[in-house]
Amino acid sequence: MSVALAERSRQADAPGPTPIPDGLIDALDTLQRPIVIGHVRPDADCFGSMFAAARSWPGKGRKVAHVALRAGSINRRLQFLFDWAAAPTATADDFQRADGFIVVDTAKHSRCNVDAALGEQWAGDRPIINIDHHASNTCFGRFDWIDAHAGSAAELVYRLIRAAGRPIDDVVASLLYAGIHSDTLGFSLPTTTASALEAAGDLVRCGARVAEIGERLCRSQSQAEFNLNRLIYGNTRVVADDRIAYSTANHDEITRTGCSAADVDDQVTIPRSIDSIKVAVLFTEGAPGKTRLNLRGERGVNVLDIALSLGGGGHRESAGAILDVGIDEAVKRVIPIITAALDAPVPKS
Amino acid sequence: MSVALAERSRQADAPGPTPIPDGLIDALDTLQRPIVIGHVRPDADCFGSMFAAARSWPGKGRKVAHVALRAGSINRRLQFLFDWAAAPTATADDFQRADGFIVVDTAKHSRCNVDAALGEQWAGDRPIINIDHHASNTCFGRFDWIDAHAGSAAELVYRLIRAAGRPIDDVVASLLYAGIHSDTLGFSLPTTTASALEAAGDLVRCGARVAEIGERLCRSQSQAEFNLNRLIYGNTRVVADDRIAYSTANHDEITRTGCSAADVDDQVTIPRSIDSIKVAVLFTEGAPGKTRLNLRGERGVNVLDIALSLGGGGHRESAGAILDVGIDEAVKRVIPIITAALDAPVPKS
Repeated sequence: MSVALAERSRQADAPGPTPIPDGLIDALDTLQRPIVIGHVRPDADCFGSMFAAARSWPGKGRKVAHVALRAGSINRRLQFLFDWAAAPTATADDFQRADGFIVVDTAKHSRCNVDAALGEQWAGDRPIINIDHHASNTCFGRFDWIDAHAGSAAELVYRLIRAAGRPIDDVVASLLYAGIHSDTLGFSLPTTTASALEAAGDLVRCGARVAEIGERLCRSQSQAEFNLNRLIYGNTRVVADDRIAYSTANHDEITRTGCSAADVDDQVTIPRSIDSIKVAVLFTEGAPGKTRLNLRGERGVNVLDIALSLGGGGHRESAGAILDVGIDEAVKRVIPIITAALDAPVPKS
Repeated sequence: MSVALAERSRQADAPGPTPIPDGLIDALDTLQRPIVIGHVRPDADCFGSMFAAARSWPGKGRKVAHVALRAGSINRRLQFLFDWAAAPTATADDFQRADGFIVVDTAKHSRCNVDAALGEQWAGDRPIINIDHHASNTCFGRFDWIDAHAGSAAELVYRLIRAAGRPIDDVVASLLYAGIHSDTLGFSLPTTTASALEAAGDLVRCGARVAEIGERLCRSQSQAEFNLNRLIYGNTRVVADDRIAYSTANHDEITRTGCSAADVDDQVTIPRSIDSIKVAVLFTEGAPGKTRLNLRGERGVNVLDIALSLGGGGHRESAGAILDVGIDEAVKRVIPIITAALDAPVPKS
């Protein structure tokens, strides 16, 4: 059954959204003691879709299903979503007693945010229901619904809830709005579809707390996060005839802001925001002598090849690598490589 | 007629959107040589709604109506909207020949972005059709449609176009999407309504260029703008037991970034983004010895009284003033006033 559903549901080239596979809603409805699972380092879409699913398919005699969250999984900035959801965190006993698992926004079994102490076989022969929007999903569930056309997993959970005729209260609406809004960068990415906007409109009618979500996700940061951004701004340099912008944060500097390596996330958007550039790089030394590179290519510049040549990986326009050197050495090594790549003749296609 | 329409259309306390007044679409349809007008210092919503109206009601024998734009009105960042619209700029002769004016997003007659050489009476006895979403609109038109429930003027123009049964091509869709997206801060402000999101969904189906708009409005800035942001970040201070965050840019510093006073816009969002604070202030010395204050209050803190006491004005949570002193003197004078206001006992209601 898994394979057939997977084949039906992975229509990455199909023109429109992938329909909900037959039997999926029944499978959700029959779970008595489900646990809802997302990916490691959960973001707003992961939390939004997890917690909305946990409230919509709570199992028997509960208001909210248990959710799997390893210790330290809740980013300070996203704590409010957890508070709104009021979902209990699953213990090892809850895992024992569970009769199925709802996994959202998670491309691989090994990325599930499940305590390592439970082992690789935490599901055993119990069903995994796998709901995701990553084209790279490995279809590890007994039921897999993978729609790579959706900008967010929260949009998929929204569609499921509507198709199942389940109610959407203001909490579920808020959780789903946060997920859809966040994964489309405020409806500004190429993944922004009409159906995502229409879903969001429906969620506003259901009471989604737009202003509070906007405030917490888009317009506030801790002093430590502010200090880190200030540092990245201050250290930004534009080189190679305005074609490369890069910034740096060495280990001492990161520590002094009050942040740790875990807080380095998407700050490459700071050098990336300069409109003349073709490549943006952020060099961060999370641990002494270990420098992480975040690369972004603009206007079709392929940074994946650069990342691969440095032992890293990623996508064509968004890639990364880790070098076993300090930050100054990393800059000295990498900037000439990028410059050479920009100077190289473009291969004829 | 103006008064009756104004009364009907200004239902600020009404629960839902204000309907399009009878006769408004007929009035638009009968214009043969209209000129479309917005407000001074036009923003993305102003341009989006102006240019979409100019393409939808072009008058007789044209594809796009003339638009009124005083010299220097086009902010570099928004130039692409003007390029997409391909709207001719109205000359004094065009004003002479016009048989009516469509004014969008403009609260007062005196704020119309019309060349001063044309005088106050540029409309004479010709009709002004006034379409706006500011509750403070003075209803200066022969036809006034003021809907303070709408988060953007572009949403009103969208509703007009749909009600009139006019086509929406990808250019009109893109212009309107830019306006709606921008004035709701990416659908994150309290003004974000379900109908705004549904309109945006419809516009995506009509071909709105979401990714390009997102890129140009949200994710790119000139090196000068980047330098200004870096300066504001670098100069941010948190004082008064973490309750006030302020930043400064004196005249020399602004000049050195490559920006001018006109580029100082919403940078108070930088100190404002620190989540512990109650008041954020930006001090900018656009001309030597003239310091502009931008004030923001958080969590219900009223900054309007502070602005009024300094000879300024604005709204409860967003206000400003201009002081005839340099920046150091302004900081020395204003921070104690704000601190005292925060320390004052809250009056019982």
